[in-house]
Amino acid sequence: MAKDFSTREENYSQWYNDIVIKADLAENSAVRGCMVIKPYGYAIWEKMQASLDKMFKDTGHSNAYFPIFIPKSFFSKEASHVEGFAKECAIVTHYRLKNSPDGKGVIVDEDAKLEEELIVRPTSETIIWDSYRNWIQSYRDLPILINQWANVVRWEMRTRLFLRTAEFLWQEGHTAHATKEEALAEAEKMLDVYTEFAEKFMAIPVIKGVKSERERFAGALETYCIEALMQDGKALQAGTSHFLGQNFAKAFDVKFATKESTLEYVWATSWGVSTRLMGALVMVHSDDKGLVLPPKLAPTQVVIVPIYKNAEQLKEISAKVAPIKKAIESKGISVKYDDRDTHKPGWKFAEYEFKGIPIRLAIGPRDIEDGTIEVARRDTLEKAVYQQIDIEHKIENLLAQIQENLYDKALSFREMNTHIVNSWDEFKERVENKGGFLLAHWDGTPETEEAIKNETKATIRCIPLNNAKEAGKCIYSGKPSTQRVIFARAY
Amino acid sequence: MAKDFSTREENYSQWYNDIVIKADLAENSAVRGCMVIKPYGYAIWEKMQASLDKMFKDTGHSNAYFPIFIPKSFFSKEASHVEGFAKECAIVTHYRLKNSPDGKGVIVDEDAKLEEELIVRPTSETIIWDSYRNWIQSYRDLPILINQWANVVRWEMRTRLFLRTAEFLWQEGHTAHATKEEALAEAEKMLDVYTEFAEKFMAIPVIKGVKSERERFAGALETYCIEALMQDGKALQAGTSHFLGQNFAKAFDVKFATKESTLEYVWATSWGVSTRLMGALVMVHSDDKGLVLPPKLAPTQVVIVPIYKNAEQLKEISAKVAPIKKAIESKGISVKYDDRDTHKPGWKFAEYEFKGIPIRLAIGPRDIEDGTIEVARRDTLEKAVYQQIDIEHKIENLLAQIQENLYDKALSFREMNTHIVNSWDEFKERVENKGGFLLAHWDGTPETEEAIKNETKATIRCIPLNNAKEAGKCIYSGKPSTQRVIFARAY
Repeated sequence: MAKDFSTREENYSQWYNDIVIKADLAENSAVRGCMVIKPYGYAIWEKMQASLDKMFKDTGHSNAYFPIFIPKSFFSKEASHVEGFAKECAIVTHYRLKNSPDGKGVIVDEDAKLEEELIVRPTSETIIWDSYRNWIQSYRDLPILINQWANVVRWEMRTRLFLRTAEFLWQEGHTAHATKEEALAEAEKMLDVYTEFAEKFMAIPVIKGVKSERERFAGALETYCIEALMQDGKALQAGTSHFLGQNFAKAFDVKFATKESTLEYVWATSWGVSTRLMGALVMVHSDDKGLVLPPKLAPTQVVIVPIYKNAEQLKEISAKVAPIKKAIESKGISVKYDDRDTHKPGWKFAEYEFKGIPIRLAIGPRDIEDGTIEVARRDTLEKAVYQQIDIEHKIENLLAQIQENLYDKALSFREMNTHIVNSWDEFKERVENKGGFLLAHWDGTPETEEAIKNETKATIRCIPLNNAKEAGKCIYSGKPSTQRVIFARAY
Repeated sequence: MAKDFSTREENYSQWYNDIVIKADLAENSAVRGCMVIKPYGYAIWEKMQASLDKMFKDTGHSNAYFPIFIPKSFFSKEASHVEGFAKECAIVTHYRLKNSPDGKGVIVDEDAKLEEELIVRPTSETIIWDSYRNWIQSYRDLPILINQWANVVRWEMRTRLFLRTAEFLWQEGHTAHATKEEALAEAEKMLDVYTEFAEKFMAIPVIKGVKSERERFAGALETYCIEALMQDGKALQAGTSHFLGQNFAKAFDVKFATKESTLEYVWATSWGVSTRLMGALVMVHSDDKGLVLPPKLAPTQVVIVPIYKNAEQLKEISAKVAPIKKAIESKGISVKYDDRDTHKPGWKFAEYEFKGIPIRLAIGPRDIEDGTIEVARRDTLEKAVYQQIDIEHKIENLLAQIQENLYDKALSFREMNTHIVNSWDEFKERVENKGGFLLAHWDGTPETEEAIKNETKATIRCIPLNNAKEAGKCIYSGKPSTQRVIFARAY
């Protein structure tokens, strides 16, 4: 059982780390910045993957796999891409080890130096568009709607489990289209997919918007994003979808013959979410008792703990539990019956509470007599006694309620922590103290954006889609502004 | 539509490549030895993954994820492991690029040299056992039953799509046990899982055995394997399961407190299959008309092609097809209705034949009148006319028949190409000409094994499990032997 862990109040950052490590989600490895995703954490990620993968396929996408290595020269082909990306990365320079002459271990064989260095992919636009060149001749070959589940590496200096790691897992969609309109529609469609996933599965409300030019993806003409608010008042970017225009098609010379037999460059999008979402999931819902998981992503949704004094009682309870477990499972709900006699019920209660199992059922001799069962919700920590009859429907409904409640709670937190700010003093004070989403006027220049970041560490999270136009004055420069944008400090 | 492809007779190796490339399974990338797995190939791999993953979970395993990088020094910790493995690999030496002073592209920043080089994993025993050290204190922490789906890199000099590539996808199971018996049982259990997968899903008969010492995995005490026979008479290792003894536990100092409070080293297994299986799948079943897929792994199991002269006919046919498609799909069968008017039925027939779709249905105006539908099997190329009534059951049965027929055909091929060989001349002649599995006596020494390999390129594929004991003389040295082993040239 996990103990001695921090509360949010005491030390938010430590609280987050304690949950990730003590709930067995992930840990640091021997390789700087690379994490080990442990079975419990990975099982949550698998549920995320399965839901997203289905949504991608339902919107017409197929999966494929491209090489992990990218020739160094590819990064230079798209000018803004290399500026934004290729600096901190893992570089493969050799392809052979040999025995050390001193007989101690192995050393790099200098004779086995690559002619051109290979970069471990930080993202795959370049290697994928190099392939697309051969796949696309005419408009009949379009659109190409491909997704890849992969590991990527970005040599981050300061790392935190899930939130920022040198290696992480993600999916990256890369699509090719005949027209600008179609590519834009695709980028927006995938933002909607991410939004639905965040809100319906992760129970995290998000704001859809576009990035300012400064925060845009390297090589994109427009970066759509969803932004979520964490419990410490910091924002977390929960997914991005990029309209890449013809930039990569031009860099990799990908043209197609139109119906009218002209040759044109192909239009592109890319979009991705990563294991970073695991960090958001932990930070949005968990509390000082540990992890809280939305039912739709919980590997185990219901745990049943028997309360017994002796082997005979356990046997009796187990006989009663078997059909209850089966009935609940018939609803597609995952149930674990923990009848281990190596741990006491109190220990088990604390363990499952810490690990965020949405519903805990307990059943003892009295319940057997009365035909009842004790039901505890992880989200509210409430307990109730249910009649066993028709338990599967009651549990199914309760899981749906918990899913909804977590979303509502997160939404209400976000609303409480979203502020219209009209003065620079108030802006600074809010950023420094409680954080949250700050709706403020901005003059639209990268210079002002940078100055605000330098003074407060707050960045423009997004310009909301369908943002209301409102004349005003920039919070920082006092120059005219046409709309409020969302500022926050961010992960 | 694919055309101009080789037959097996003309050029087996070219035939294989043609199918892989022209059926859109995979292609070479810009990075030497690394392949792109295209959507159709990847969809087959996804079906393999889903089936295997379920079998792993049904046998109590969980998935997790460990870093792609392994510190160089880790490979030296297990002496035989480094000998067998760490020579040809991708080595990361730097972590930053910078702009080239000449303004042309980027160069490696020599200031960003890693203190210790990182190896892109060729297999993960070392990094995983380095983690297990912290996970295992007592017998209560055992067994650990973990699998990982990952990409790995081995710097192969001569590569072939799927069969031997620098980067490939695989799963690697890594388990930790309290006793030798339990670890051995695990290694054998996973061999059984692989066998069931190969035979029931891939429709490929395999021989279960153990490797000779020379062919054993680097660091293993025993390597169990399954061996399959390809149509050119060469063998392909379709899966391995290793009993690692306490080698990695000793190398990484992983001990546990027993129930009796003594400290002991942990026992280990590892086991894996890879995208190499895609190569086996192509080579075992395909023919001179293209790819042939077993129904259980075909992304599309049934295709329906309308035969029509005008839009009105197509409309009528489509109306008739809709309920047929729905009925077949209700059986969990994947169906594609190809009503594209950009291609003629003949083109579509050839295309789906080449891509190995197990069943093709064709429906024209006459069928509408008669309530019939034309059914073509990909495996036998037979055609028949079915009544539309109860079509879903007929198709379901036919798919099962095709699955079984492919297995039977492959089994019969293997039986026809398995020979008891008693003289060295016959051995050489058979290896050189038709290949196949050769059952021959061997004196049990690595020297003889090596000499046979040098003279014929044939290796010991395995010593079958439960091999019949039979006194004889070694085919090569004439020394006494107690059993026949299986020789073949191999992929």
